[in-house]
Amino acid sequence: MSQDSSIINTGLRGVKVASTKISDVDGETGKLIYRGYLAKDLASKATFEEVAHLLLYEKLPDSDELKSFSSKMAKERSLPAEIIQALQTRPKSALPMDILQCAVPMLAHHDPEVKSTTKEHALTTAIKLIAKLPAIVAAWDRIRNAKQPIPPDPRLSHAANFLYMLTGNPPDEETSRFFDVCLVLHAEHAFNASTFSARQVASTTAHMYASITAAMGSLSGSLHGGANTRVMEMLIEINSPENVEPYIIREIEAGNKIMGLGHAVYKVDDPRALILAPMSKRMGEKSGETKWYEISTRLEQKGKEVFKQRKNMDIFVNVDFYSASLFYTMGIPLDLFTPVFAVSRISGWCAHVLEEQFAEAAPKAVLYRPESEYIGEYCGPTECPYVPLGQR
Amino acid sequence: MSQDSSIINTGLRGVKVASTKISDVDGETGKLIYRGYLAKDLASKATFEEVAHLLLYEKLPDSDELKSFSSKMAKERSLPAEIIQALQTRPKSALPMDILQCAVPMLAHHDPEVKSTTKEHALTTAIKLIAKLPAIVAAWDRIRNAKQPIPPDPRLSHAANFLYMLTGNPPDEETSRFFDVCLVLHAEHAFNASTFSARQVASTTAHMYASITAAMGSLSGSLHGGANTRVMEMLIEINSPENVEPYIIREIEAGNKIMGLGHAVYKVDDPRALILAPMSKRMGEKSGETKWYEISTRLEQKGKEVFKQRKNMDIFVNVDFYSASLFYTMGIPLDLFTPVFAVSRISGWCAHVLEEQFAEAAPKAVLYRPESEYIGEYCGPTECPYVPLGQR
Repeated sequence: MSQDSSIINTGLRGVKVASTKISDVDGETGKLIYRGYLAKDLASKATFEEVAHLLLYEKLPDSDELKSFSSKMAKERSLPAEIIQALQTRPKSALPMDILQCAVPMLAHHDPEVKSTTKEHALTTAIKLIAKLPAIVAAWDRIRNAKQPIPPDPRLSHAANFLYMLTGNPPDEETSRFFDVCLVLHAEHAFNASTFSARQVASTTAHMYASITAAMGSLSGSLHGGANTRVMEMLIEINSPENVEPYIIREIEAGNKIMGLGHAVYKVDDPRALILAPMSKRMGEKSGETKWYEISTRLEQKGKEVFKQRKNMDIFVNVDFYSASLFYTMGIPLDLFTPVFAVSRISGWCAHVLEEQFAEAAPKAVLYRPESEYIGEYCGPTECPYVPLGQR
Repeated sequence: MSQDSSIINTGLRGVKVASTKISDVDGETGKLIYRGYLAKDLASKATFEEVAHLLLYEKLPDSDELKSFSSKMAKERSLPAEIIQALQTRPKSALPMDILQCAVPMLAHHDPEVKSTTKEHALTTAIKLIAKLPAIVAAWDRIRNAKQPIPPDPRLSHAANFLYMLTGNPPDEETSRFFDVCLVLHAEHAFNASTFSARQVASTTAHMYASITAAMGSLSGSLHGGANTRVMEMLIEINSPENVEPYIIREIEAGNKIMGLGHAVYKVDDPRALILAPMSKRMGEKSGETKWYEISTRLEQKGKEVFKQRKNMDIFVNVDFYSASLFYTMGIPLDLFTPVFAVSRISGWCAHVLEEQFAEAAPKAVLYRPESEYIGEYCGPTECPYVPLGQR
């Protein structure tokens, strides 16, 4: 079985590249499934630790398993002193996603088993990376603000500990839970661009660190993980609910997209956005700044109206739409939105690397190596003769 | 036009993902073309600087262009002191490919224009990365051996300067030219795994640094850039020409592959191997150690015979087969073979990132987002109900 080789599959849309047991996205009905479970059920009932266990070990943990897994994760949270030291050599203006891309390979440098090719080692590495990424993000934010990084508190949950390491204050229970829900909702989404990057690198048998670093690079792109930042920049530009309608009309007339509206896969509202919206509302009330939620909700409503009227198009909010105002009112700096996305999605990436390299059903030793069509020029019917330098 | 969505395209074999003007690989006739020119013509006549110019600017430079380009490259060779300082914090046991993956994003940290999305900036970054990568490889090799990194010598060619920074001694003319030919021959090879990684990350609009870092990760895999190292490890294991035949028979009987024999694309001898073989012979004579070439050439001959007799298979040498003994007799440490591959291939990667993001014919804003088939389990006909922790 092979595909029609005359077709150029731009962006690989509609081209199946693998079977996966990790997640299912039903764009028609707006269902997102992690290993059999609805993400919205997990968001309302499970913690990020449970979901990370589900993704990595293919099952929700029982009480003992969760205790053991959470304890392993908590023990792995701190960073080697040499990594803090290396981060301190970095210019304070460095982009946080560029910091993550250098910090992940640094963790490889400190792994005495880095050459191991066992599944056990890959799992250990996955736990280490998921556990340490929040520490890297928080340490960098403090270093660039001339503050000392805060050591992790093993008594706190994964979600609460990140906010604590970032701000120096343990968050209240509601904020901590909201952030935990965000982590659950961003954890996994099938073969999105960054996950595909991770799998693609893993297919060469490169290690977990290299695969995750590639995914970080992919997520840093403004078309992918950078989108939540761009939503917030848009909200700041709009600045007030009454500016929403003129903004939409201006953008539509200029032929621009509205950030956070529309998704490559969903043909209905993104199931994650439906959960994020009320949290954004509540967090706005809590923080005393309801403006960002108000602009968002008006933008959603008016955006849908205007697109329907002018373009006869149904458009829907995506995950970035309400996570932007939610992260902002939680006090997360704008340029850490994408790193926070990574703090969650790294659990999905790791599960995909494990599946790419160790799934029983997977064919061994097949790296992704697509074809391309050469449309370059030849000098005549065949290749160009080399012209010596002096005669060019 | 779309593909049959019931087919799973493992490894994307035979699936066209893009049009490219950069290179053409004709596996049937053994032709490798860089922008219209045969790689073998370029290898015998052009320098790496000319080829890098050809790849980035779509034309062979005239004398003035070459002078200007070479001078730009030479000026960009040195590393910021803070990067040397950060490398000095790294454990000496770190794998060199993991060092490259942290050093490339570090260069992003020092770029005040890192947010620029212009083609001009991407080109400037490409030149910077191509110029600086040899300095990173050489600096790391010296740091891990407790030696001071050697500043680049702008009077030397790109090839000669790398060997100088690595060893502290400028190479003789013949060695320098041989290394230059290696750089030319490894520079570009269509949509191989690492190049595809670079393009895939670039498709999210992530910057050049992030794209190249991903490619480094892909190249570090033993199925891809790690193959030249594994060829040399095999030669060391065989150790003597008379051990070749028993080695081949043992490996074939165990169902193993012989490293360096066979290629996913070429159905004849890899055109690059044909050029590398005589250089390996000559370098062996020069260095006084002809054993590695002798083992290689006997392995090629006997391997072909035995595969034909026992499996009725025609097998052919690939690029890694003779580059292994050649690099080794040049005094390049075994674990720098893949980094040296990167020092060359980065020119192709950069050309592909430029094409992915700026080609006029390219559709704008389409990231690679393939499909997958969900084969996970459900609890009954639909999704699994969430079971609370205490009841699992």
